[in-house]
Amino acid sequence: MKKYYYGACYYPELYPEERREEFIRQDIQRMRAARFNVVRMAEFTWCLMEPKEGVFDFDWLERYVNQLGENGIYTILCTPTASQPIWMARKYPQTLYVDNQGVRRSYGGRHYHCYNDPTFREFTDRICTELSRRFGNNAYVLGFQVDNEMGQEHSDRCQCTTCRSKFKTWLENRFSGDIAALNDAFGALFWGQRFDSFDQVEPPAAAHTSSYNDNIGWKGTSMPALRLAFDCFCSESLIDYFNLQKDALRRYSDKPVTHNTTHMGTNAIDYFELAKAMDVSAVDHYPDALATSKWDSGANYSMARCYHDEDFWLLETLCGGGHGNWAYQGMSHIHPGAFRQNMIYAYAAGAEVITMFKYSVFPAGFEQLGSALIDLNRLPGRRYEEICQAGEDLEAMKDILAISRVRSEVAIVIDYSSLWIHRIKPINKDFDYSRYVRNLYRQLTELGINVDLIGTEHDFSNYKIVFLPFAPILPESFGRKCREYAAQGGNLVCLCMGFSRTAWGSGIFEPSPVGMTDFFGVCVVEEEPVFPGKTEAYVAMDDIRFQTCHWQETLKNFDAEVRGTFSNTYRTGLPVISVKRHGCGYAWYFGAVPTDHDASVLWQQLLNNCGVIPSPVQMSPGLDIVTRYSDRETFHFVFNSLDDEQPVSLIRISEKAGGDGKLEGNTLFLPGKGFAILRERP
Amino acid sequence: MKKYYYGACYYPELYPEERREEFIRQDIQRMRAARFNVVRMAEFTWCLMEPKEGVFDFDWLERYVNQLGENGIYTILCTPTASQPIWMARKYPQTLYVDNQGVRRSYGGRHYHCYNDPTFREFTDRICTELSRRFGNNAYVLGFQVDNEMGQEHSDRCQCTTCRSKFKTWLENRFSGDIAALNDAFGALFWGQRFDSFDQVEPPAAAHTSSYNDNIGWKGTSMPALRLAFDCFCSESLIDYFNLQKDALRRYSDKPVTHNTTHMGTNAIDYFELAKAMDVSAVDHYPDALATSKWDSGANYSMARCYHDEDFWLLETLCGGGHGNWAYQGMSHIHPGAFRQNMIYAYAAGAEVITMFKYSVFPAGFEQLGSALIDLNRLPGRRYEEICQAGEDLEAMKDILAISRVRSEVAIVIDYSSLWIHRIKPINKDFDYSRYVRNLYRQLTELGINVDLIGTEHDFSNYKIVFLPFAPILPESFGRKCREYAAQGGNLVCLCMGFSRTAWGSGIFEPSPVGMTDFFGVCVVEEEPVFPGKTEAYVAMDDIRFQTCHWQETLKNFDAEVRGTFSNTYRTGLPVISVKRHGCGYAWYFGAVPTDHDASVLWQQLLNNCGVIPSPVQMSPGLDIVTRYSDRETFHFVFNSLDDEQPVSLIRISEKAGGDGKLEGNTLFLPGKGFAILRERP
Amino acid sequence: MKKYYYGACYYPELYPEERREEFIRQDIQRMRAARFNVVRMAEFTWCLMEPKEGVFDFDWLERYVNQLGENGIYTILCTPTASQPIWMARKYPQTLYVDNQGVRRSYGGRHYHCYNDPTFREFTDRICTELSRRFGNNAYVLGFQVDNEMGQEHSDRCQCTTCRSKFKTWLENRFSGDIAALNDAFGALFWGQRFDSFDQVEPPAAAHTSSYNDNIGWKGTSMPALRLAFDCFCSESLIDYFNLQKDALRRYSDKPVTHNTTHMGTNAIDYFELAKAMDVSAVDHYPDALATSKWDSGANYSMARCYHDEDFWLLETLCGGGHGNWAYQGMSHIHPGAFRQNMIYAYAAGAEVITMFKYSVFPAGFEQLGSALIDLNRLPGRRYEEICQAGEDLEAMKDILAISRVRSEVAIVIDYSSLWIHRIKPINKDFDYSRYVRNLYRQLTELGINVDLIGTEHDFSNYKIVFLPFAPILPESFGRKCREYAAQGGNLVCLCMGFSRTAWGSGIFEPSPVGMTDFFGVCVVEEEPVFPGKTEAYVAMDDIRFQTCHWQETLKNFDAEVRGTFSNTYRTGLPVISVKRHGCGYAWYFGAVPTDHDASVLWQQLLNNCGVIPSPVQMSPGLDIVTRYSDRETFHFVFNSLDDEQPVSLIRISEKAGGDGKLEGNTLFLPGKGFAILRERP
Repeated sequence: MKKYYYGACYYPELYPEERREEFIRQDIQRMRAARFNVVRMAEFTWCLMEPKEGVFDFDWLERYVNQLGENGIYTILCTPTASQPIWMARKYPQTLYVDNQGVRRSYGGRHYHCYNDPTFREFTDRICTELSRRFGNNAYVLGFQVDNEMGQEHSDRCQCTTCRSKFKTWLENRFSGDIAALNDAFGALFWGQRFDSFDQVEPPAAAHTSSYNDNIGWKGTSMPALRLAFDCFCSESLIDYFNLQKDALRRYSDKPVTHNTTHMGTNAIDYFELAKAMDVSAVDHYPDALATSKWDSGANYSMARCYHDEDFWLLETLCGGGHGNWAYQGMSHIHPGAFRQNMIYAYAAGAEVITMFKYSVFPAGFEQLGSALIDLNRLPGRRYEEICQAGEDLEAMKDILAISRVRSEVAIVIDYSSLWIHRIKPINKDFDYSRYVRNLYRQLTELGINVDLIGTEHDFSNYKIVFLPFAPILPESFGRKCREYAAQGGNLVCLCMGFSRTAWGSGIFEPSPVGMTDFFGVCVVEEEPVFPGKTEAYVAMDDIRFQTCHWQETLKNFDAEVRGTFSNTYRTGLPVISVKRHGCGYAWYFGAVPTDHDASVLWQQLLNNCGVIPSPVQMSPGLDIVTRYSDRETFHFVFNSLDDEQPVSLIRISEKAGGDGKLEGNTLFLPGKGFAILRERP
Repeated sequence: MKKYYYGACYYPELYPEERREEFIRQDIQRMRAARFNVVRMAEFTWCLMEPKEGVFDFDWLERYVNQLGENGIYTILCTPTASQPIWMARKYPQTLYVDNQGVRRSYGGRHYHCYNDPTFREFTDRICTELSRRFGNNAYVLGFQVDNEMGQEHSDRCQCTTCRSKFKTWLENRFSGDIAALNDAFGALFWGQRFDSFDQVEPPAAAHTSSYNDNIGWKGTSMPALRLAFDCFCSESLIDYFNLQKDALRRYSDKPVTHNTTHMGTNAIDYFELAKAMDVSAVDHYPDALATSKWDSGANYSMARCYHDEDFWLLETLCGGGHGNWAYQGMSHIHPGAFRQNMIYAYAAGAEVITMFKYSVFPAGFEQLGSALIDLNRLPGRRYEEICQAGEDLEAMKDILAISRVRSEVAIVIDYSSLWIHRIKPINKDFDYSRYVRNLYRQLTELGINVDLIGTEHDFSNYKIVFLPFAPILPESFGRKCREYAAQGGNLVCLCMGFSRTAWGSGIFEPSPVGMTDFFGVCVVEEEPVFPGKTEAYVAMDDIRFQTCHWQETLKNFDAEVRGTFSNTYRTGLPVISVKRHGCGYAWYFGAVPTDHDASVLWQQLLNNCGVIPSPVQMSPGLDIVTRYSDRETFHFVFNSLDDEQPVSLIRISEKAGGDGKLEGNTLFLPGKGFAILRERP
Repeated sequence: MKKYYYGACYYPELYPEERREEFIRQDIQRMRAARFNVVRMAEFTWCLMEPKEGVFDFDWLERYVNQLGENGIYTILCTPTASQPIWMARKYPQTLYVDNQGVRRSYGGRHYHCYNDPTFREFTDRICTELSRRFGNNAYVLGFQVDNEMGQEHSDRCQCTTCRSKFKTWLENRFSGDIAALNDAFGALFWGQRFDSFDQVEPPAAAHTSSYNDNIGWKGTSMPALRLAFDCFCSESLIDYFNLQKDALRRYSDKPVTHNTTHMGTNAIDYFELAKAMDVSAVDHYPDALATSKWDSGANYSMARCYHDEDFWLLETLCGGGHGNWAYQGMSHIHPGAFRQNMIYAYAAGAEVITMFKYSVFPAGFEQLGSALIDLNRLPGRRYEEICQAGEDLEAMKDILAISRVRSEVAIVIDYSSLWIHRIKPINKDFDYSRYVRNLYRQLTELGINVDLIGTEHDFSNYKIVFLPFAPILPESFGRKCREYAAQGGNLVCLCMGFSRTAWGSGIFEPSPVGMTDFFGVCVVEEEPVFPGKTEAYVAMDDIRFQTCHWQETLKNFDAEVRGTFSNTYRTGLPVISVKRHGCGYAWYFGAVPTDHDASVLWQQLLNNCGVIPSPVQMSPGLDIVTRYSDRETFHFVFNSLDDEQPVSLIRISEKAGGDGKLEGNTLFLPGKGFAILRERP
């Protein structure tokens, strides 16, 4: 029987020395009472592990691991590389990060290292090897986490001498030493920016852009292709740095190695590529304390689950409010019940491990006074009580979890090259690729279905619909995959600008979707951003009329069925949605997407068209559903995120298999912040 | 008969090599079909022209020039200095721009050079000389454009060692080596900032200010006079750099040399001074795609036309929407008809040459995918069709254009010292000198009249009214000119704060308008900004009552007729508008200006007072008029910028001499996005 | 009889040389007519006083001092250190300020020096010694002002080599050379930021934060304790720099030495600490020109008055509008009467000296054209007339002023450590410690009472209520003081988060208020920010119900009387306000504070509870009151800040002892911008 892990991130080393033993003893007692069986530890303790260069001390850590282990609590052990000790920063300044202004970070905070620096990599290799030697076979260690949220604090685009040099070599390899090929691929002749040799290429001045404003001024005028190349290079460098650690950990251990990814939050690393290197998927996610819907959690868990098409570890998640960590202000507390509900939701959506962040409040440091399970006053309060409750709930439902898994009929493809090029050259200040993908996830799941967030290399064959939103950069091989998918009965739905650029983000002197006009039967003849109140248009598809947003394209129909046309402005009657049959499947092209307001009717129509089976629950605001499938049964986990009881209408007959509330006839009376498990048999 | 040129900016060198010949052949065919007879080329191709230091290659360019020329298409040839080749940037880093943080720009983008650097100037001289040698007598070359939009990308305030040194010398010359004179003129003793020698003077920390926010912090506390001096120095340096190029081009050629100015967009260069050096005026202008009025284009064309009081070249103008170049997002497409209308409007307003930006979409580079006449798919679409239509319209009306010219009875004076000092020390966050001048242009032209935007040295004698808005810095000689103008029958209208500061922007211990109180018959006794909802007042002039904005001044009347008084607040009854007769003319002083809402009634009254002849067209929103005069006839070009037909009432009898629509009695039925030419005979 | 001083800041050295003598003569004549008897001079004239290194010239200044003195006008003489001469900046670049980017300021503006640099301190010592030698016994010199508004222009957090080194030494002294003690106190082990030696400690990357936005990015992740330590160190350094000057001035003089503080505007210096060094309190304050209340002035004057519990000097105050100095735009003029009223208000609130900023407009320099008493046109206008009027008013009321003084029954404690830690780790973007303290002052004074703004070391014994708002960092000794105060009959009112952190801002593993739970009888069990529209709650205290703002805490009651409970949300019924009796006094704890809207009813109730005597005036918007007490009488200075006459109802019988308006029965008819003095006898 599959085992589930439940616990918290734990930092006993931060307790005052004179009270540490007492606190740890009390903590263990309380953890056991809450049915905890796991902690995550040690991700920022390099200065304790290697207090002097080459001098290692793991005794303190081993004591904690063993003491917890002997009490039934396993440890996920982290490598401490997210903040090198001060002796390293001072003696080896080359290990420090250099930003795109050429400024070398000083010691302070975290993530002030360069992942490519040979000295830093040597120290990394050594500390990970030592960790592996000491803990690689400790029975109480469940696995290893590499570093911590790599790329945070804008630490993902180092421009130090080493990085500059490696970037040149990387380009030279990509272009087989042919600088003319780079000039052509990058369109470098524009503005006369041609390079004579790889030696001349430097990282772009505007290396990292977290917001539109950073693009302003001459820095923003760098070659887009160069910026995209640097994004790819840095992502690969960070993955390479993960692998360096994994290899070192492997020396004396075969325990699983993972990394706490940040879903679409950091954007520094192509996580689908990183996932290939991780033994198990892991993610950090902090739900909004006041959320009245779980879609945001759902999207993050969906992406984490799809990395390996299996359960994931949730290594950090919200513990409450009060003083804040990262919002640069305090945070709201979650309402009674929401805490427990978040735990259940995560397990339902595929979590195998949860380590909440964090057991005890930090008295000092940047995250000082931020929320935790146990306050500084050491009085167990309502948060601790809910955690105990959730521990019991987990116990009650673990059999259902173990025999079932999440499966989806609908998927949305995420492509990092597209994400990066949208950031480099925005099509609309209102448009953010990540946000759109997540919005689309929300629009679809609000219809009561599971949705997968997958990479371009993911197997399509189990999906009835695959959405391809705003993905201009797609290789030829991906086009072939789409053709096969449709031929075998799938519905490939391209939402704007698919297949329109080269791997380096350049346009192509061909009708778009390039190389796929025969597949879709249409090409794009005019395109523009949509500005609310200025240029938005209406589109009619069947009997549905929706308002466009973000971007709209006028199509020319060669060989498809026109399913939608503009219905106002000077474009009235021009094609904008098309479908073409291939074997038993279909290639859809949407030249425009609906606003949030109009989305549900449109997508419901599309789901119906494509034979996606509706959920048995009549959806309404505040309700979320995760559906899990065993060999013979279907389990619908239903959540009421509102504070008050909701009557939930069931369209099909189900039975209650767990959770709160009462099922009366076709109505489930679900209390505020409650959940229920409904079982369907075929 | 005067010849008109019509065409586009053209970049065949950016086509993929394997398809280039095919594309060029197709392009020429399409250009001819659209009646094109000009292209602009080569402004960023230094790396092609001089691929290695001292090695020149113009063969490729000559081939294009000749191939186009043999097909009846002339070339405006650009010098390529806006982006030096990478070999220069790497070998001669002194050619790179240094900003006010002391940061030297790296290679990348464009305008990363220092216009004062001797090395860069030597290379500039050489490439321009070679261009002149090769193309100076090529019959297909219409003229030369120097550089490209000098000063863009904040490249107009270099602070490299050379610039610092030149600035000191410049000041030393201005003050004849007398540092005490500089200290006095700059008021340097304030905050004890007195210099002991010119050698100590450095450019201001806050060198360039694109927005109010840049002023914040200690950088904003630089001496205003020093900042103004640096603005003047840089403007002169850029003009000097233009002249360097012009002299080199002159070596083997007498073709006209110009520069694509950016009207009031860059503010880096005193264009009235630059205009003295240009053989012909030229301007770039991108109309708002969704504009329902042409005043913005009108203002830019008016300024360009007034540089030399003759027709100008429009070297870049809008080609459509889609992906954007410079908005850091996509751009809207223009509605059907607007494209053609923009072309007609430009010719009517004085364009002799139009080269639209640009013929074909750029696949890569910073401006990748931005709009063009021909899309990457090479399918001629609605934009191409409109361009053909406009070519026909030009053909039809060129005789009228050739015999007539734009003339105005009303002028607005633009003064760059005033512009700069307003930027250095803003009087009101709501107030922007450039924007106000342009607003005033709009308010006046909405009354159906032509308005000239002129420099301080322009001849006033043909105007019935000359407006002098918000111009504190005016030399004594200008005061004399105003006196003469009024004496000869003109209406000199000073709008706030005229004649109140020295050439260096300092105040003067005299009543203001300094040295002109006898001329205006009033002086200013109190002044303050106007904050909407807080301090705005009402002013009554005759039977007109208007709300003040931006700034208001209370006058003391010595010897004028008070024409307007405050009509509310504690200032009620105090003078704010005055007029004094001089010979057959008048000196008006307005201590306050009206809001947009109240402007038209007030200015109409003033026009009536001053005998400005009204247009025959009853103005209404969406209508724009340009009036051209031949020896015996008057031609009113009327434009309907709305999407729907408008009935246009004519106050005087006219006849239709061209364009769209039907004239029925006194009503012209003008279709949406249409234009008509009305003829009046005396 | 106490003497009052009235005058302006005066800069004759900035007049054009050829007109200087004439202007000075005219100025003196006008000053005398306005009853001026003081000027402030010379604060930026180092380049005149020491034109070459080691060469001093005070002749020019002595001439002014004597000429004015002979006309009955005393001088407050300033040391000129706020802007060192250019020869110093160029020859000794180490005297220049270095910001937290490592950028050394160039010469220009003011405050470009490092207050810790030994060279600069030597020059400072010398110029102050020379000033003392020359003017220390000049009978016309009233006293000395050190520097000018120290810390302005972000000059308060220098990070030059000297400052870095001094900071390390400062820390080493604080922690007696024990780096482990620092690590513990700072919680440095968080994120593994432990130091091995003091030599490794650097100032925080985010040294100075003027706004929330500066916290963003990795710079914001510095250790809070380190930032707080640097704030303390810099404040002490600036005070030390003041003392350096004071010691030098003392060499030949015993005249009072002061500094023009900026109340809560700069936040760079703990002014309560600085006050210990000043001989007399002084402050600069610019009232809002359009204010319809005087609370803002009142708060600033209250703080200045409490530094020494005596009258203060008002060294700069508003002179009008027009062109602006520091708003980066122009400024509104004040309405007729407001100017005079501001003067009276300042004297009533405790000013002994007023030197308005400034006598004459500056023609040039950063503050060019900013408002003054006399405009550049040298015509005395309405501002000058009002100043004369105020001079007469002062004459008329000086006897009342001399025999009475301001006293308050209510005080609010300001703590700089709290101020800094709130800036370092904001609890709510909506919350600003300074602003809250000032708002609380406003809420209370709107009830018609005097309120003192005091430091933690101020004597509490004369107050009926002492408010302790949002002060987490309070030493144990302060706790004892609170206990004594309550025991002796006071009402100690803690508003949220008091006594919750260590001196370095770290949390403590104890229930909060730490060490004071027995005193208050409660502890805090949950806390969170309040976001309008999202999380605000209602609290019921007695029959009063108020809405919370900023922050709210749920209490656990041990041993107090619960006086307020939450009255909505899931917290309904939980305690939030408590009171516990101690001797004849009370310890109040408020876990939440009211919005502005609900404040007056709540605080009135509290005042009633605590026996604070109400003012005889029925308060209403636009009215302000300052109450002064002589041995036997009470004088209420009543101000009407509105433009129109107000009828003011009197609750108790009083008589009119001066000022404007008519008292008819119990109604005082007070004209717009008028004031009256009401006398009460016991």
